[in-house]
Amino acid sequence: MTYLHANERRFIDELKDYLRLPTISAQAEHASDMVAGARWVADHCRAMGLQAEVCPTPGHPVVLANTPRRPGKRPRVLIYGHYDVQPPDPLEGWESPPFEPRVVGGRLFARGASDNKGQHFAHLKAVEAYLRTGTELPCDLTFVIEGEEEVGSAHLPEVLRRRRAELTCDCVVISDTGMPSLKLPALTYALRGIAALEIKVTGPNRDLHSGIYGGSVANPAMVLSQLLAGLVNQQGRVTVPGFYAKVKALSAFERRQMGRLPHQDAAYRRFLGSPALFGERGYTSEERRTARPTLEINGLTSGYQGEGSKTIVPSWASAKLTLRLVPDQSPASIVRLMKAHLRRICPPTVRLEVKAGHGAEPYWVSPEGPLAAAALAALRRGFGREPVLIREGGSIPIVVGFRKILRAESLLLGLALPDANAHSPNESFHLEAFSGGMRMSAHLWAELGQTLARRPASSAS
Amino acid sequence: MTYLHANERRFIDELKDYLRLPTISAQAEHASDMVAGARWVADHCRAMGLQAEVCPTPGHPVVLANTPRRPGKRPRVLIYGHYDVQPPDPLEGWESPPFEPRVVGGRLFARGASDNKGQHFAHLKAVEAYLRTGTELPCDLTFVIEGEEEVGSAHLPEVLRRRRAELTCDCVVISDTGMPSLKLPALTYALRGIAALEIKVTGPNRDLHSGIYGGSVANPAMVLSQLLAGLVNQQGRVTVPGFYAKVKALSAFERRQMGRLPHQDAAYRRFLGSPALFGERGYTSEERRTARPTLEINGLTSGYQGEGSKTIVPSWASAKLTLRLVPDQSPASIVRLMKAHLRRICPPTVRLEVKAGHGAEPYWVSPEGPLAAAALAALRRGFGREPVLIREGGSIPIVVGFRKILRAESLLLGLALPDANAHSPNESFHLEAFSGGMRMSAHLWAELGQTLARRPASSAS
Repeated sequence: MTYLHANERRFIDELKDYLRLPTISAQAEHASDMVAGARWVADHCRAMGLQAEVCPTPGHPVVLANTPRRPGKRPRVLIYGHYDVQPPDPLEGWESPPFEPRVVGGRLFARGASDNKGQHFAHLKAVEAYLRTGTELPCDLTFVIEGEEEVGSAHLPEVLRRRRAELTCDCVVISDTGMPSLKLPALTYALRGIAALEIKVTGPNRDLHSGIYGGSVANPAMVLSQLLAGLVNQQGRVTVPGFYAKVKALSAFERRQMGRLPHQDAAYRRFLGSPALFGERGYTSEERRTARPTLEINGLTSGYQGEGSKTIVPSWASAKLTLRLVPDQSPASIVRLMKAHLRRICPPTVRLEVKAGHGAEPYWVSPEGPLAAAALAALRRGFGREPVLIREGGSIPIVVGFRKILRAESLLLGLALPDANAHSPNESFHLEAFSGGMRMSAHLWAELGQTLARRPASSAS
Repeated sequence: MTYLHANERRFIDELKDYLRLPTISAQAEHASDMVAGARWVADHCRAMGLQAEVCPTPGHPVVLANTPRRPGKRPRVLIYGHYDVQPPDPLEGWESPPFEPRVVGGRLFARGASDNKGQHFAHLKAVEAYLRTGTELPCDLTFVIEGEEEVGSAHLPEVLRRRRAELTCDCVVISDTGMPSLKLPALTYALRGIAALEIKVTGPNRDLHSGIYGGSVANPAMVLSQLLAGLVNQQGRVTVPGFYAKVKALSAFERRQMGRLPHQDAAYRRFLGSPALFGERGYTSEERRTARPTLEINGLTSGYQGEGSKTIVPSWASAKLTLRLVPDQSPASIVRLMKAHLRRICPPTVRLEVKAGHGAEPYWVSPEGPLAAAALAALRRGFGREPVLIREGGSIPIVVGFRKILRAESLLLGLALPDANAHSPNESFHLEAFSGGMRMSAHLWAELGQTLARRPASSAS
């Protein structure tokens, strides 16, 4: 801890160097910056004393870096992060250039500061402290820092499969989520999954003049509205039969944990700019947005959308939907339920097509298990505050990849504060979250070392 | 009639000359063609023996042409038509160039052949026959041939108001609608009106990440779907309270007339390419599309509409609607009912905006009155067939203009056959409809002359 404190200024300077690299994975013109970014990470790891390798893929490379392997069997932990960042657009929204990091008011501003360079850099610096002070690491560690998180992690699963033998581990640590405030360090123990669908109904084989033909055929936009309208009722419940069958109920323990969060509906409503909050009856808005499944329309398309009016019965109408899923719902079976239900309720006056899009499994690791206990202890010691247990409403598909390919559970220890502006202009990383994160990480290896040493390697959760 | 028959070949050649002029009112690059078109009509009228004038407007000019005024009071009839045409796009759909008229299989193909040059040209030639053969015209006639019908007739009402004294008439004759077949000449005695609306519901003040926020606020696209879904029930009835209150019921006479039309649902369904026909229970599809009011969604817009998916709760959703109205519904009161109903059913979770668009009154002239009887007699004599009485589902706003400004009813004597392709590639005009139309027109002046002479000038309907 002394080492971390004494070297913090240097760490910030190093992180600034890292943040100067415009590693924008989505933009082809940054391909060489992506290679430079991967090299920077590998070189930095080597300088710290890790064995590092830039592992090419058909897309952007993955950096693998591990602590020197020592004789004897120690618990093995994999630390995941990503060196790629979102595009900085809209540029005019930034108060200082996105790739010229600067510290203002205790926050380091730059694209990628919170998402995700600053967060995994905290883990790297905690490991550096062990290595430079000659302290024995209680676990063998491997960093997996990829370059395609912001574009879907298309090539990481293949790397995990190819290198499974060396990447096999007892658990995965990921700092790529959020914490409610500096006073509330958090372990995220669940994520929602997702199932995407596109619905299209087609009536006449062309747009029809609504004066000449209107009244003689069903209007596809009306039929679509009627199909969609019946999918969620006035109590905010999804009405598709069987939709809730596999939903694991929130335990009293979980609801108590959620109740500890400093959520205020009035302020939250103002933040969203919505006339009112709304959702499934019987749950708080915090529970609804993180721990309950939903059906959302993402887009509607039909007929004429320009200025003024065009008097047609449109030939077709379509809707894009995503369903957020919770344990133990699966995207494939929810898609099956949706398709069957829509076919059942669709009238014979239109043709119905339902196309399944991407899907991701929901994620849940016991908030009362030994891994969670180790993480909570590290958070408590690192931040000097009692941590909270939270669920997040989004999806991180790669955690399901780690579970399926490496059979390892993930601990999500997010360091991004609510004002971090990930994916938006003026992204920042709180320096207190950085220093707390480094301390948390240093404690985590000790806590996990003790916890994992006590259990057989095969039952990682 | 001998004159008409003897000169038919020349008439067709003259009509071809007229059709060669690309009088596309919607396209600025055809402004000089529009001026040339108006001049061609005026010159042609003068050559026939009419007094003609090109009457400028802030848009395209109107041609006014009248028979020589004679001493003594005769019935006065106004004949309406338009020399402007729709753009010919898509050009690749045409089998021969749109402005190079040619006769194939008894049909004259060219843009504007049916809509509307050929139709009003039939009236011009019938009048020419009177003038050239020295036959006394039973009515004083004035042609009003405008150049902006395809772009909304914006400037015609002002011309009617300005020249009201000379344009005052006992009735208006318009051939700009359809006839079911060459064996079924038709009088269109009713048109539907229209009321356009745009509905927008807004929830959060920006698109929200559906993972982070989904479940805590109402989804505007879902609320819009629910609002729309309830506006029409499973029996095809509009559910807005009071919507049907002013609807004049179809008389037994009218339903019998409609029953005479050669409509076949199976063939009609195949023509539309729709899996099924649908509409208000208790009415035939022919009645529904022409004589019953409807509520149609013309377009839907919300959120993400591109490839793949974007996981958002959209900030807003909107729909364009048109309601087709029948006598005695009025656009203004229907818009009032719609607004009140939507406000009543809209939940407090979104902000609702309802914007009224354009409106047109429905039109109806008694199918059993003396004007209709005169028109039917002329059709019977002109085509040698028993005519039918039909209603059309579209709107011709100018007929309401004639009623309001000139206090004159319109007789709609359409000569376009169902395969005329008005507004589409390969527009055509059946030469038999042309010759039948000329004969009908020649008889019409006699029939109207007798009918109108019997009645006081003030009660034209």
